[in-house]
Amino acid sequence: MTMINQQYPSKLLENAVSQFSQLPGIGRKTALRLVLHLLRQDTEDVERLASALTTMKREVKHCRVCHNISDLEICPICNNPRRDRKTVCVVENIQDVMAIENTQQYHGLYHVLGGVISPMDGIGPGDIEINSLVERVGQENVEEVILALSPTMEGDTTNFYLFRKLAPYKDLRITVIARGVSVGDELEYTDEVTLGRSILNRTIFEGK
Amino acid sequence: MTMINQQYPSKLLENAVSQFSQLPGIGRKTALRLVLHLLRQDTEDVERLASALTTMKREVKHCRVCHNISDLEICPICNNPRRDRKTVCVVENIQDVMAIENTQQYHGLYHVLGGVISPMDGIGPGDIEINSLVERVGQENVEEVILALSPTMEGDTTNFYLFRKLAPYKDLRITVIARGVSVGDELEYTDEVTLGRSILNRTIFEGK
Repeated sequence: MTMINQQYPSKLLENAVSQFSQLPGIGRKTALRLVLHLLRQDTEDVERLASALTTMKREVKHCRVCHNISDLEICPICNNPRRDRKTVCVVENIQDVMAIENTQQYHGLYHVLGGVISPMDGIGPGDIEINSLVERVGQENVEEVILALSPTMEGDTTNFYLFRKLAPYKDLRITVIARGVSVGDELEYTDEVTLGRSILNRTIFEGK
Repeated sequence: MTMINQQYPSKLLENAVSQFSQLPGIGRKTALRLVLHLLRQDTEDVERLASALTTMKREVKHCRVCHNISDLEICPICNNPRRDRKTVCVVENIQDVMAIENTQQYHGLYHVLGGVISPMDGIGPGDIEINSLVERVGQENVEEVILALSPTMEGDTTNFYLFRKLAPYKDLRITVIARGVSVGDELEYTDEVTLGRSILNRTIFEGK
């Protein structure tokens, strides 16, 4: 509340705190704590952090095919000959790719939209990588597109838009990740939309 | 749990995440979020952050008198002719100076110890700015030393040590901030009303 009047003993310190506190989720108090921590570190450590950030910003690329972050023109996943090239999983962002990779359950390729359609935030279909997906499906031998967007209003809107755009490809299978009760969740605390959908989309119990 | 196996799509990204996650309280997931945020910013913004950190680290000084952080040899507080030079407030760190300044209840000078005596962490009296305080009291016309350390075991230990060291100055008044601050709380996170009141209601240190 009085942080506005906060007197910094040093302009250099204040500047570093201001820069840090522009990061999402970092308030001025946290920024100050981080900056004072850095002040106690060796100069080389601070320079290593600074150069890691600027080098990354200057040199990192987006994969020409799937728009995932990459050090090369084509990312390691698109470049991996052992991945199933006939399946493309559409995700919102890079974290989602990493989350799905972490499951070790998926061996196809990805397409990173870089966002979802959100009229409230002024993000339309032209602002995200939808056209490149449609082109990609047209040019490559894609048999299945998996829609793996977050089950939010925006995710659903984007799903429907993608479905319409991909409908002309008659042989293409368009699937969506299962929505249901999370593993480990208590049934009684699951919201009714999720629970209702998980009943409608029930699968044969295989008893293994 | 599976973060150990986390596959980063880019070495440059991974390096930036590793550097960030060495900061206190920043895990790899938060670091990734911050790094991806920076990736969406302009190159100049990222370079401004990087250079704010390295410039600060290279150029920031510690005040020759009070050991507070400063851009010059003598900090603005020690250099301010309107401050009461007969009163020195002893604090653990720079955040504490800022917290007390924020109360606008104190107009004397400071002495930043840079830590408190903590045998558990291997910090002895020689590792913090105690000798320079004793010298300072001897050389300058100090009439009162206010002990404003956090009310923790380490803070109390340091208070007693300082009291013994300063006892030979017969005319010196040694006071301690009022214990409106609850035991176990960090000074820098105390609300300013309590903190301001605890400075106004400081009492004679009895050293028992």
